[in-house]
Amino acid sequence: MALCTLCERREAIFLRPYSGERLCARCFSKSIERKVRATISRYEMFEIDDKIMVAVSGGKDSLTLLHILEKIEREFPESELGAVTIDEGIRGYRDEAMKLAVKNCRKLNIEHVTSSFKDIYGYKLDEIVDIARDKGKGLTPCSYCGVLRRRALNIVAREWGADKLATAHNLDDETQTIILNILHGDVVKLAKLKPVLTEPHPKFVQRVKPLCEVPERETTLYAYLKRIEFQTTPCPYARTALRNDIRNMLNRIEEKHPGTKFTIYRSIEKIRPALEATAKKVRIKECKLCGEPTIGDICKVCEMLQELSIL
Amino acid sequence: MALCTLCERREAIFLRPYSGERLCARCFSKSIERKVRATISRYEMFEIDDKIMVAVSGGKDSLTLLHILEKIEREFPESELGAVTIDEGIRGYRDEAMKLAVKNCRKLNIEHVTSSFKDIYGYKLDEIVDIARDKGKGLTPCSYCGVLRRRALNIVAREWGADKLATAHNLDDETQTIILNILHGDVVKLAKLKPVLTEPHPKFVQRVKPLCEVPERETTLYAYLKRIEFQTTPCPYARTALRNDIRNMLNRIEEKHPGTKFTIYRSIEKIRPALEATAKKVRIKECKLCGEPTIGDICKVCEMLQELSIL
Repeated sequence: MALCTLCERREAIFLRPYSGERLCARCFSKSIERKVRATISRYEMFEIDDKIMVAVSGGKDSLTLLHILEKIEREFPESELGAVTIDEGIRGYRDEAMKLAVKNCRKLNIEHVTSSFKDIYGYKLDEIVDIARDKGKGLTPCSYCGVLRRRALNIVAREWGADKLATAHNLDDETQTIILNILHGDVVKLAKLKPVLTEPHPKFVQRVKPLCEVPERETTLYAYLKRIEFQTTPCPYARTALRNDIRNMLNRIEEKHPGTKFTIYRSIEKIRPALEATAKKVRIKECKLCGEPTIGDICKVCEMLQELSIL
Repeated sequence: MALCTLCERREAIFLRPYSGERLCARCFSKSIERKVRATISRYEMFEIDDKIMVAVSGGKDSLTLLHILEKIEREFPESELGAVTIDEGIRGYRDEAMKLAVKNCRKLNIEHVTSSFKDIYGYKLDEIVDIARDKGKGLTPCSYCGVLRRRALNIVAREWGADKLATAHNLDDETQTIILNILHGDVVKLAKLKPVLTEPHPKFVQRVKPLCEVPERETTLYAYLKRIEFQTTPCPYARTALRNDIRNMLNRIEEKHPGTKFTIYRSIEKIRPALEATAKKVRIKECKLCGEPTIGDICKVCEMLQELSIL
């Protein structure tokens, strides 16, 4: 087995195809931490005294993010780190994830706030999915979950007093979403897909994605090497078929042409200023029903719940 | 077998997945001609008295385009139609294509201008590929061919006095190129990928793509139904592996989600004004060596030929 390209002392355990580096466990982990620091600094994600809330699902990405941010923020005593886990109410899935989130936060001595769809909306996701099916509504479980979880995270982060809400989207998530938005013709979403998202309304907590330049297989390897206990059961509401197609396609192309995911990511970075410059400036108001920020008179969440007659 | 959705009289021979229509041979062919007319009108491709030169390779797309434009332009007696075929000099490939191009033009009574890489540059593509291999230069045959053919078409069209140069790029070509440009991070090319391309220099003939909204399998079916004789031998210099990957991926997604190619195409239409607005305005000069229009001091063609020491 070859020696690590960086330290030239320890045995390499990982070949990074897009750079040609062979890395030992130690240099690999350090390279991930360095990368996250570089991303944070490049996009000016944090101030030295930020209250940062990390969205922790209990999976490999969010727990990797929590561990790395805990390490980084130790150097900034004026900053504060918290974690939030939302229990969507998915039988046989979320309980284990919640336990792992609690366990990791305790181990790292990080304040952990939890909330649930049941608390916030009065219904679990399982119940919402059942009602939608009974009413013959067309949305997928992931569509309901996406909208409701985003709102729930924003509410909890805001009430905790967070300056930033950090989510664990990795490079694969981001490139899949780029292609998906192009396939869907959704240019507005493409413009909003960025490492730091500031919505022009005080009720929105600024959202940051410190792992957005780390490939998924590297966040996974980091979690394994650091012996982070994370959930491996996939969500029973499988992801959409189209995203899976795109994931497979991108992985196949990345294998043959290492670095393609980074190139896609940079393509959109180059396009984004143009998209933003011509995007219509929308005024964000407060929803007439719930008071949360929205573009229309009634927010997407209230619209969904109304459609299911559960608001 | 079901009846045609449109005429409700003849037997359907084609199911169009993205519209749900079942079409008979006659209604199918008419639908393609209607689509091309709509594209021409939508993008204002032609004036009533245009001199239009069609780039004819001898394949299904370019001969389909030639047949349809001949039909349309009959209604505009002040317009003029010509065809151009460039002999790149590819052994065992171009000869058959050239014969078919000649035959079709004669049948349609269309003036046919031919030229070759040998005439214009002094070397056949086969020779250029050999020289490049001997010198250990890294470009693929398609890279040389693309640059040299584009230049050759522009020269012939300009000398013929063409107002427009029409190429037969179909919807599949365009969507593949969109994804390819994103994968390559080439945003400038993405902005230029449009149905009507006007370069700001009088030596450039305006380029139009009347088939850009017709899927490839439909141009093929049209050619078969109209009994157009076209070349089926593929070019011995196979296309790049990456484009093939993208073609397969898009076809797989289109099969599962009909209409995806159109959506991708429209995505870029929506983005394009933004891209163009912020793209740097480049001044086009004339190449110091050959006098053809270029961005730099020396054009891409002269640069390539110089690198191979054949200029």
